[in-house]
This record gives sequence, C-alpha cells and structure tokens, in this order.
Amino acid sequence: MNGLRYCFLALFLFQVTAHSRGTGDMGVLIERGSGSVQIIETSGNTSLGRVEGLGDLSHASVVYSRDERFAYVFGRDGGLTKVDILNAEITARTLQSGNSIGGAISQDGRLVAVSNYKPGGVKVFNADTLELVADVPASFNGGDLRSKVIGLVDAPDQKFVFALWDAGEIWVLDMADWAQPKIEKYRNIGRNPYDALITPDGRYYIAGLFGEDGMALLDLWNPSAGVKRILPDYGKGEQKLPVYKMPHLEGWAVAGDLAFVPAVGHHEVLVINMRTWQEAGRIKVHGQPIFVMARPDGRQVWVNFALPDNDTIQIIDTQSLSIVKQLKPGKGVLHMEFEPRGEEVWLSVRDEDRVEVYDTQTFKRKAFMPATKPSGIFFTARAHRIGL
Amino acid sequence: MNGLRYCFLALFLFQVTAHSRGTGDMGVLIERGSGSVQIIETSGNTSLGRVEGLGDLSHASVVYSRDERFAYVFGRDGGLTKVDILNAEITARTLQSGNSIGGAISQDGRLVAVSNYKPGGVKVFNADTLELVADVPASFNGGDLRSKVIGLVDAPDQKFVFALWDAGEIWVLDMADWAQPKIEKYRNIGRNPYDALITPDGRYYIAGLFGEDGMALLDLWNPSAGVKRILPDYGKGEQKLPVYKMPHLEGWAVAGDLAFVPAVGHHEVLVINMRTWQEAGRIKVHGQPIFVMARPDGRQVWVNFALPDNDTIQIIDTQSLSIVKQLKPGKGVLHMEFEPRGEEVWLSVRDEDRVEVYDTQTFKRKAFMPATKPSGIFFTARAHRIGL
Repeated sequence: MNGLRYCFLALFLFQVTAHSRGTGDMGVLIERGSGSVQIIETSGNTSLGRVEGLGDLSHASVVYSRDERFAYVFGRDGGLTKVDILNAEITARTLQSGNSIGGAISQDGRLVAVSNYKPGGVKVFNADTLELVADVPASFNGGDLRSKVIGLVDAPDQKFVFALWDAGEIWVLDMADWAQPKIEKYRNIGRNPYDALITPDGRYYIAGLFGEDGMALLDLWNPSAGVKRILPDYGKGEQKLPVYKMPHLEGWAVAGDLAFVPAVGHHEVLVINMRTWQEAGRIKVHGQPIFVMARPDGRQVWVNFALPDNDTIQIIDTQSLSIVKQLKPGKGVLHMEFEPRGEEVWLSVRDEDRVEVYDTQTFKRKAFMPATKPSGIFFTARAHRIGL
Repeated sequence: MNGLRYCFLALFLFQVTAHSRGTGDMGVLIERGSGSVQIIETSGNTSLGRVEGLGDLSHASVVYSRDERFAYVFGRDGGLTKVDILNAEITARTLQSGNSIGGAISQDGRLVAVSNYKPGGVKVFNADTLELVADVPASFNGGDLRSKVIGLVDAPDQKFVFALWDAGEIWVLDMADWAQPKIEKYRNIGRNPYDALITPDGRYYIAGLFGEDGMALLDLWNPSAGVKRILPDYGKGEQKLPVYKMPHLEGWAVAGDLAFVPAVGHHEVLVINMRTWQEAGRIKVHGQPIFVMARPDGRQVWVNFALPDNDTIQIIDTQSLSIVKQLKPGKGVLHMEFEPRGEEVWLSVRDEDRVEVYDTQTFKRKAFMPATKPSGIFFTARAHRIGL
C-alpha cells in the first residue's frame, strides 16, 4: 500500500501548491514592521496569506506583472523580490544595491527597473528571472559624481523616466533594444528634484523641487521642447515653512482638466488646470496633505495628512471643490488604494496595526483586518496602467 | 489496488481541472461562425482553448467578473453565458430573452444586466448564479408599448444607464438596493437612439440618434439639468446619405480634451472638444468609419471601416490630426482591442478566419492565429474599467 500512500501525498501536495483563481481582485499590503507582505482580495475583503523575508520595507512600493500574478516588491535596502501571489511564495530575490527607492515595470512587462540612492543610478532586470539587463550609473559633473535617483516611472515605448537629486537632471531611458539602452538627458531642470509623477496617459513627467520653488515639466510627446518650469509658487516659498513631510507626488489626482496637488507645508490642496498648467484654486484642509488621490471616476479626492494630523482623512468633491466628509480611522493613516472601479477604498492605519475598507458612496467602514504596521497598499489592477 | 487506481484518477482529474495562472493577460475572441469563444493570452500571444455551445454570437459582447476569471457573453439570441476562462468551461447559462443586444456588469461586480429587444427591457442577474434579480420592462405610452433597449452601460454607484429606441428615452436604473430598483426616466431625448456610450470616468452618457441629427447628452453628475442636445450637425444630414452601417459609439476615442468620433455616412472622423461639446475638426479617412479607438495613451487612434472598405485600417496621430499609417490586414476587419497599456493591438479579420496582433509603435505584425469568423475581441483588463 505504499503506492496508495504516495499517491495521496502527491494529491495533497498538488492541492496545496496549485491555487487556481482569478487574480484581478488581488493585492498586497506592505507590512513594514515585519518585512512581509500580506496578500488580500477585494471581492470579499479577506486576507489570503503572507510572505515573509523581504527585508527593510520602509517606503516599499510594488509593481505587477502583466498577468497580475507576480508582485515585484522594491525594498528600502536595495532588495528586489518577485512574489508569486497565487502561491504565496518568493519566486526570485536579489539585493541589487545598498539603498534604493522605488521601481517600475516596462510597458511590455518584460523589464523591471529600480532607482538607487547608493550607488546612484538605475538597474534594469529581466522581469522573468531578475537577471541584470542594464546598469545605468547616474553620473554627472563629467563623470566624477554619482547622483541619487528618484521619481522612476515607466512610459510608453519601453521607456523609463527618472530624475537625479544631486545633479538636477531628468533622464529618459529607452530600453527598446536591451543590448543598446539609449539615454536622453535634460539638464538644469532645477535644484534637488525629490519626487516625480507621470500623468495617467504617460505624456507629462513632472518633478517636484526641494531646492527651489516651482516644478519641472517634460512633455514626452514633444521632448525637443525641453523641460519647462511650471507653478512658480509651488514649494516652500520665501518664508521657509516648517514642512513635516514632503508630500508624495505619485498621488496626484486628475479629474477632468483639473489636477489636485498637495501644497508643500501649507494646510491646502492646490487645484491646477492641466491645459494651462496654471493654479486654478486652493482648498483649505485639515493639515499638511501627503497623498491626494482621486477615486477612479474623478468625482472625489481623498486626502491624508502629515503628523500631527495623520489620524484624519478628508474627502473633497471635485465639482464643488468643497470638503464633503471627514473620517478619523486612527493614528498613522499612511496610504490609500481605491479598488479599480472605485466602489471601495482601503486605508492602512499603521499605529493601530490594521487596514480598513470603506464604501466610497456611504463612507461606512465595511471591513477591517489586522496587519503588522501596514504602509503601502497595491492592487493588481495597477498592472494595466501606465506609470503605476 | 482499487484505491490506488481511484487515487491516480483523482490526481489526473485534479491536474486537468485546476489550471493555475494569472488572469490579467487573458481574453476571449468571439467566433461568430461556430458559436464559440476562443480563449487567448497576450503575453506570448497564444491560444489557450475554446468553449462551444454559446448560441448565436452575431454582435456578441463580453464583460468580465472583477477577479478577471469569468467572462459573461451576451449573445444575439438572448443567451447569457458565464464562461470560466481558467478552466475553459461554461459555469452557467440562461436563455433570458428572444433577442438581445449587449450587457454590462455593475461597479461592485455582483450584478450583470442585459438589454433586450424582445420583449423590450432590461433584465438584471446575480453575477454569481445568473439567477434573475430584477426585470425592468421598457414600457412607454402609458404602459401600452414596450421599447427595444440599446446602449446599456454601467455607471458608478451600482447604476445602469440605457436608451429606449422606440420611446426616445434614457433611463437610469439604480440597483443599490436589489429588492427595490429605482428608475429615473428622461423623456423626449430625440428620435430612435440607436447606440450610446459612457465616458471613461462614468460621467457623460451620450446616445446617437437614428431618427434625427445631433446626439443626446446626460451629465450624470448633474442629472437634474436633464438631457441636452449636442453636435447638431452629427448624423445623416438633410441629404440622407447612403449609410452602409451605423458606426459604433462604444469605440469613442478620448485623448486629452478631444474625442474622436466616426461621422455617419461620411468618409470622416470628427474631432470634438469635450469641454464645450463643439466640433473641433474633421479628418478625411479612407471610408465610412465604424470603430474609432484610442490607444490607451491617447497618442494614436485606430479606425476601421464599413463595406466596401473593411479590409483597411488607418491610424491617426492625435496631436497632428494626420494619418500616419494605413494597413491592409485583409477582408472583414470587424474589431480591434488594445492590450491594456497599448503596446500591441489585436484585430479580427473575419473573412480570412484569423486574428492578427500588431506592434503599435512599429506597425509590424507580430503574431496571428486562426479563428472561425472572428468578430469581437475582449481582454480581461475591461474588468477594471467603468463602462466596459
């Protein structure tokens, strides 16, 4: 009867390993406290599993493979981990630098890029194997110095765009030919770009400047026009406000012609007309905004805040530009992620060790679950979007 | 040894049935000639299987469950079929009317609605089981008559929007409470609405009119403003052109502020400013356009044509408004579907019994595969979009 025993064992193992389900409603939560990710699904709002051993996950972010099965997790310590979210296991992992921040996946899904602080530059990996494909040092000053890289995003046509903190430059890396990466460099874009975003259509790359006011704009449809300065009043201003945390730019909310942007240091959300790149209004809010995120239909914008106001969420109606609701989920609301069609939103409440799910129409809390110091929340629908 | 035999059988069956893979890069092709759908994936551009027995699939369309595992196929004969694309099998099927056209899935993914010609109305089903949840007859004229229903779409907040061909009305069906559906009716919107679309943000519902010129616009953010007439010159005009096929409206292409719209009867694509709803230009094209579809980044618009020009595709650059490329894939190019981030596009070439895949940057054909009189192509990324 040994045969029967082995057969049952095989059946058991097969059942354990072959998880069969759609992956369109899945996602991961970063658990900063334990260096793990929790795998969740948004149809029933439940936890499906946990993967540990991902290193230092402060400021970690995630992109997804085009089949929505693999999460690429970018750790603060230079770790790049490919996680199979169907089977809750690590498929590949590399410690690719000493200090990194963020990454991106190419339009065709075949390349993953990581932006590094130390040594400063971008490394590009085969998304399948995590083998190194290209190493792009962020050299400047005639090659003597290397800059920290920030604001790395993907753009159409197998391009990656990023900014050099120390050099004040924006680079466009064209990876259409793996063996011969091409780089376009835009110099003198402003002092110390600290974060950047690309608009959802992949056209405009916008970098925020820490060293001066205003923002740097590159129109990727008209790259020969170079980098322009927009929003000359955007920044800390002459009086040098106390800034508790520089706001994230990835969270720029776009609704129709309007972008909603966290003001630096002020208790305000700025409204910007994206056709003219002029300021179109200011909305008074509860504290210094960090993330300003649009519900997928653009009807609402949800805002979280820096300390000491990070227990609060405010919700802005993008038509009336008024605050329609305030929530107090708990201390340390670090991140928000909308379900793809916007009916629910997930919040990570770090200091309460939980994530919460809200109905975006009724503002009622529909679910919550424990998580170890949760920060970023990332759903698989990002796989289908440009610049996420 | 019977136990061993059964165990191997169980192992074999389990292996056959439990397909484990991500579903984000999958899709189906409608095979009109054989009443089947072919299941495909877009990472390697291959066919994964076929499901038969779906009835009359002329003009068939598809929506996806929020986990991207199940395709709901709406047949012309009133058949509604739920297909498990992971396991290539029919999960549920109902012949819910005698004659239907199109359907939609609610924002939360829990309801599927079908628009029926005969008897005229909308039926709403539990997306899980396909049990009937609500039957909404399209009654008018004091309840004496029933209208054909067209242009059914989903909108945020568990709403469905559709138009009544015979009655000249637009209805908004609110399914937030399954037991108590609510209907808002907009009357006298124009004669014979024949198709409609909702903008990607779920805000504007626009119906084309067969019985007169112009289009009917409902702003769902301001429903009390009622339905307005826009584009007074849109239609067949006073001279009553020969129209070989009324163009599809679902394919409205939006790029920035501009929408690109097939002109009725003319060899033109109209450019419309969506802020003012005024015509902003006309582009001469090869024939009477049927689908005018934007690449996901909005940089290109691909156009196919009615007979006798249905062997041709033209590609418009949305910045210069000029035609940058013409392709001749073969006779009967019926539909196009872009991969979610736009690097490739699939075309169905009905009369050649094949589908083709093109690189949208080089315009080179990258793959093709046989299909039986293919028409519509639908990728799972639609699960994450409003109005698709």
